[in-house]
Amino acid sequence: MKNIGILLSGRGSNFEAIARNVSAGKIQAKIALVVSNRGQAPGLETACKMGLRTLFIASKGKEREVYDQEVVAALKGAQVDLVCLAGFMRILSPVFVRAFPGRILNIHPALLPAFPGLDAQKQALDYGVKFSGCTVHIVDEGMDTGPIVRQAVVPVLDEDTVETLSARILAEEHRIYSEAVCLMIEDKIRIEGRRVVLKK
Amino acid sequence: MKNIGILLSGRGSNFEAIARNVSAGKIQAKIALVVSNRGQAPGLETACKMGLRTLFIASKGKEREVYDQEVVAALKGAQVDLVCLAGFMRILSPVFVRAFPGRILNIHPALLPAFPGLDAQKQALDYGVKFSGCTVHIVDEGMDTGPIVRQAVVPVLDEDTVETLSARILAEEHRIYSEAVCLMIEDKIRIEGRRVVLKK
Repeated sequence: MKNIGILLSGRGSNFEAIARNVSAGKIQAKIALVVSNRGQAPGLETACKMGLRTLFIASKGKEREVYDQEVVAALKGAQVDLVCLAGFMRILSPVFVRAFPGRILNIHPALLPAFPGLDAQKQALDYGVKFSGCTVHIVDEGMDTGPIVRQAVVPVLDEDTVETLSARILAEEHRIYSEAVCLMIEDKIRIEGRRVVLKK
Repeated sequence: MKNIGILLSGRGSNFEAIARNVSAGKIQAKIALVVSNRGQAPGLETACKMGLRTLFIASKGKEREVYDQEVVAALKGAQVDLVCLAGFMRILSPVFVRAFPGRILNIHPALLPAFPGLDAQKQALDYGVKFSGCTVHIVDEGMDTGPIVRQAVVPVLDEDTVETLSARILAEEHRIYSEAVCLMIEDKIRIEGRRVVLKK
């Protein structure tokens, strides 16, 4: 049984979706640890209620590498195989990325490489695209640049606001994040250049 | 009846798709002029066979503004209301763009703003996106940057090559370019910021 580690800073609705699929047996893995850099993160409370092991590691005032080493130590201590970022509002240092090479997933609410960074849904609306979506990618040392495991597309409607578009994308996030976790846990993919393809 | 002007450099398969929809009465307009910067462009021959007015204006050795003024004069002479770029392998100068403000359409074989410029399908494959597509946009003075009128999405498959992906995208190009032409010809859209929305 592989171990998943979750990093979150807020509500962690993607964490909840993954946890539901773990409980339902759709993801054949265990959530070994949920870490937050914010003590008040609602996702931490949800994890507690689910009986999961949680850890608040304060980031305030710590250098990035020092902080990341603490988190890495906690994840390694819990024998985590796959790290899932679920609204973790910090950029990982190379120290972190190299500790779990090719074993960190992130989800971004846009069709990368379009609209990386913050406020992706607003960026998409402002640009005037007719379709947007979300992307699960392997985390590398860049910002939203790693190989893409899964994407999903949603239409952008004339009457959309950031809220309505975000809600439409979020429903797809909850679906594809678990799909991507399954692919990783079941070791079903390989990477060719930047392309993530199913093993034959 | 509005007049359409077509600019092409090669086969002009998007021109053919538009011409078929004009013939079928799906686009209520007339193709008043087909211009090529290459005398050998197969699209020019196709246009001739269709009985359309064609014009070869050689670009070789001419300064961009001089060339563009010649083309603009020809289009104005044919009383063109809407200019459609259909594989016209030249960047339009501000002289051209300002002569038909908001009245020039282009099609790009990617979901802009992702993968602008040349070899968009190869860019998409190399990046490893799971969905790509095409974009019809109003031409402004940037490169593939104008407001988006229509987009279409296609999946990118593990076994795709540039050829198979391009073919899948091209089928959608043929569909959405005519849709966008209709919206423009029938004056059904307005632009809010960068967003192209249907008039109420």
